[in-house]
Amino acid sequence: MTAIIDLGHYLDERRSEIDAALVAALPRPPLCPANVADAMRYSVTAGGKRLRPILCLASAEAVGGDRRAAMPAACALEFIHTYSLIHDDLPAMDNDTLRRGQPTLHVVAGEGMAILAGDGLLTEAFALMAREPASVDAAVVARKLRVIAIVASGAGAAGMVGGQAIDLASVTHRNGSMPAPLGADDVRDMHARKTGALIRASACAGAVMSGGTDAQVDAIDRAASEFGLAFQIVDDVLDVEGASAELGKTAGKDVAAGKPTYPALYGLERSKQMARACLERATEILSSVSLADSRLVQIGGWIVNRTR
Amino acid sequence: MTAIIDLGHYLDERRSEIDAALVAALPRPPLCPANVADAMRYSVTAGGKRLRPILCLASAEAVGGDRRAAMPAACALEFIHTYSLIHDDLPAMDNDTLRRGQPTLHVVAGEGMAILAGDGLLTEAFALMAREPASVDAAVVARKLRVIAIVASGAGAAGMVGGQAIDLASVTHRNGSMPAPLGADDVRDMHARKTGALIRASACAGAVMSGGTDAQVDAIDRAASEFGLAFQIVDDVLDVEGASAELGKTAGKDVAAGKPTYPALYGLERSKQMARACLERATEILSSVSLADSRLVQIGGWIVNRTR
Repeated sequence: MTAIIDLGHYLDERRSEIDAALVAALPRPPLCPANVADAMRYSVTAGGKRLRPILCLASAEAVGGDRRAAMPAACALEFIHTYSLIHDDLPAMDNDTLRRGQPTLHVVAGEGMAILAGDGLLTEAFALMAREPASVDAAVVARKLRVIAIVASGAGAAGMVGGQAIDLASVTHRNGSMPAPLGADDVRDMHARKTGALIRASACAGAVMSGGTDAQVDAIDRAASEFGLAFQIVDDVLDVEGASAELGKTAGKDVAAGKPTYPALYGLERSKQMARACLERATEILSSVSLADSRLVQIGGWIVNRTR
Repeated sequence: MTAIIDLGHYLDERRSEIDAALVAALPRPPLCPANVADAMRYSVTAGGKRLRPILCLASAEAVGGDRRAAMPAACALEFIHTYSLIHDDLPAMDNDTLRRGQPTLHVVAGEGMAILAGDGLLTEAFALMAREPASVDAAVVARKLRVIAIVASGAGAAGMVGGQAIDLASVTHRNGSMPAPLGADDVRDMHARKTGALIRASACAGAVMSGGTDAQVDAIDRAASEFGLAFQIVDDVLDVEGASAELGKTAGKDVAAGKPTYPALYGLERSKQMARACLERATEILSSVSLADSRLVQIGGWIVNRTR
């Protein structure tokens, strides 16, 4: 019980740090026009679990580094996550009007501005990682470049964007015909890209910025892959079990849209069991590089046991 | 006359190199899903002047460096330019169905896929610059990181995305009322961001990757700012004078949309004179760092005298 209370404090503390850093990192007038600055801020400050930046900072701490060096990457990852939600919610994509309990950006600012704000956040993420932490130390410069490569790969066509493309194809056919339903392997591949890739990039970015060894970074990457899968399974379970008010988004929406979900493929109980198995594998992987006592395992527990 | 013929050869040669490098740099299956790979390739290979990558390579050559070191940045800049066209053409933005003489991406692949392909190209641009040229040389690593910062600033909310946001606000009001028309200073600021910022970033990126001095990079930046303004003025002039077939996009569209243009503000003749004045100032700036004999001045002439 102590560990759980302790984790709650830890998460609150990190969230406060992250929220402050996010607001400080957002571009503002006169550097950029007020309308796009307002739109970006609306979505970034609309709440959210901050899972990706927390994972980034926790990895930095796990390998014994100063988490402040990882804060710019942590913010960049949340910018990228936020842009992906803005674009996913657009009428041409998932057509969601509610996110984190608030109207989605295209509802309040229009579709054009929502597209632009997303583009702005994605671009700003890379500007931020290139700029900060400011240093001419060759080792820090090399780490920053490596982190940019990791994040861009996780967020791009091979990762998150690719997963969204599979998702899009699974629910829409331009000629109006029903697409072929995705099998279990396809669903897993889709989620590994759509959710898993950026979660892996988040954990790796923190470890790299804080000077983790190759063995540590590799283990954290594999553990984060398990976290990503668990996260998606739990998301699907909550979509079935959760009430709209608690989730802050429309419950049952995925099922209604005919999207392939883990409960639909495996049933609720087996899905929950699969999520717990992910956590067990992740713990084993982290133990192999003596990181079982780090916050990372606790964060994995939070991912599996969360109710929203 | 010799210089002009010579420039034509030069541009053709560089375009061939760039086109080959662009295709090689595009992500493809199994690294990423085929649908988004196809969509990205459709727009990247749809032609275009390749002005930004040419400027990037020409700057690299101007400061005496190997242009191959600048090719990844050159391709990244064309990816970013292409993504901006894809998103600008969307129904929620300019709603264009024709680009470079071909149907726009959202017409052939759907809006959702067009949004995703744009996101993918923007992200891939940064992946490419972080990855290539592959080197552990501290000087090269530092240059790559500096170029990423330059390109992200030029493409982001302070630059291109910000310019598009000003443009969007100038033609749409969500409550249906007419927006206040932009004054001459606002129009200049909009274009400096929307077109100028990425053109400046293109020229600077090449100079930085090839080890240009700070004085050279600064002069190239200022000259490219003049090129960017000249480019936009000529674009507006061609929108009035050009036929749809020659331009490969809908002529007179800007005027019809009530967009503020240089000919509308200053008349056709004065606009052309302003474009020539930009070229004169750019030539002077480049002369001050002994770069008057570089291809950059010739490229400026091409920008001002182009007919499409």
